[in-house]
Amino acid sequence: MPRVLALLGAGVVPAETLVLRADDLGVLRGDGVFETLHVRDGEPWLLDEHLERMRRSAERLALPLPADADLAGLARQACAAWPAGDEGALRLVCTRGPEDGGPPTVYATVAPVPESSRQARADGIAVVTATLGVTAGVRPESPWLLGGAKTLSYGVNTASQRWAAEQGAQDMLWVSVDGYALEAPTSALVWLADGALCTVPPADTGVLASTTAAWLLDHAAELGLRAERRMIRPAELHLVDGAWLASSVRGLVEVRRLDGVDLIPCPETARLQKLLGH
Amino acid sequence: MPRVLALLGAGVVPAETLVLRADDLGVLRGDGVFETLHVRDGEPWLLDEHLERMRRSAERLALPLPADADLAGLARQACAAWPAGDEGALRLVCTRGPEDGGPPTVYATVAPVPESSRQARADGIAVVTATLGVTAGVRPESPWLLGGAKTLSYGVNTASQRWAAEQGAQDMLWVSVDGYALEAPTSALVWLADGALCTVPPADTGVLASTTAAWLLDHAAELGLRAERRMIRPAELHLVDGAWLASSVRGLVEVRRLDGVDLIPCPETARLQKLLGH
Repeated sequence: MPRVLALLGAGVVPAETLVLRADDLGVLRGDGVFETLHVRDGEPWLLDEHLERMRRSAERLALPLPADADLAGLARQACAAWPAGDEGALRLVCTRGPEDGGPPTVYATVAPVPESSRQARADGIAVVTATLGVTAGVRPESPWLLGGAKTLSYGVNTASQRWAAEQGAQDMLWVSVDGYALEAPTSALVWLADGALCTVPPADTGVLASTTAAWLLDHAAELGLRAERRMIRPAELHLVDGAWLASSVRGLVEVRRLDGVDLIPCPETARLQKLLGH
Repeated sequence: MPRVLALLGAGVVPAETLVLRADDLGVLRGDGVFETLHVRDGEPWLLDEHLERMRRSAERLALPLPADADLAGLARQACAAWPAGDEGALRLVCTRGPEDGGPPTVYATVAPVPESSRQARADGIAVVTATLGVTAGVRPESPWLLGGAKTLSYGVNTASQRWAAEQGAQDMLWVSVDGYALEAPTSALVWLADGALCTVPPADTGVLASTTAAWLLDHAAELGLRAERRMIRPAELHLVDGAWLASSVRGLVEVRRLDGVDLIPCPETARLQKLLGH
């Protein structure tokens, strides 16, 4: 249950009072943007990077966002009310506002990190691949398809994770119709091959630019690894030195089983998780 | 501005009291379903057909819906508070409910038919085609892509209409990567060719099963026309006897310009609109 909620301009408010108008386009059309951040030591981690991405998403939607300073203040306010020693999941949301043209609702919630995420960090996860129905290159060429924008329209993301669960897996890896691994519904693909820590290039594919994957690649040299952004096919993931899904709250979780086939555990997982800090 | 709102179990309520919890997955993830109906003579038109489609959408999302009788009661309640002589746009919404597992929010709003819709009925519209990024057949084979489900995740639909407006058009016609016309973001494609009123087959393409197009095809014989469900390529639309976009509230609007090329006005538009009743 989200334990802390904050509303732009109103500070931290009781959960039951943080409500949206039922005619807000954020709910009627999933028309809005959001970010999810890891809360550590009472602070939102990588806040600047998330605000930058939120602004890029909002630009794709022609959605006016409050100033970065206001959004940062809101995020910090929500985190300040969270127990300092506990990690948490901060969500920043901006809706389009009511259909009749009223103002957007901008708010933050902080919730505990799900137990399933902690377990996934420790044990790794089983993943199934499935088509996203698109070619790898179509979304960057077609801005109306909103590739790379983190919007409130996460119906397909949610349905994909539900589908994976029905197959006995913990997550889905989306694949393009031309056969490239893209991303998971709420995380990025990261893998280790020939001494390089790799992820999928967002600009070529329309996948979301992962703040966590970017941070890991930026710090790969600290572990003696190179960093690469390139394409990969799912079959190749059975042959790499390690494969993970990376996201802000769940962190880095190892793919231990892919489409029903066990992957060899990667000895680098612990070092990478330690580098990431959770 | 929506003028009438109703909440399941609470009757017609003032607009400002019809609110959603900010942690409802309906807004956080666009996780929910909706229907939009035409209100005529104080009643929701084609209510049974819309409730049936809402139930199919909800099944795709594994979302429990209230009983049809309750949804119908809610719809009628909202319409009963609407001026009897005025047409209106009724929206029925069911969200997943709060992230912590609370109950869904089920509600109805009635709003005036936008002036732009009335004008589109009278004057027709300019339409631009654009890719939806998918092949025609991929969504029916891939249930996690939610083809044919009318969910709250309408971000791409909204962005597509915004894109069309930037091109000086009033709507977009989505095309599959294999070159078939699919549907518009909030309406179905209908055309007349060789004495047959035609639309795109939902089961083969994952387009939404249009209640309005189905009703028109079911009644085509009254105008001496056959009814066909088949695929068509955008280039062929320049050669047919008439092309329209069909939806519950806007009704039947003629495509008068496609990708910048004028189409010959169809003399059947008035008869078809009269058949449809708005």
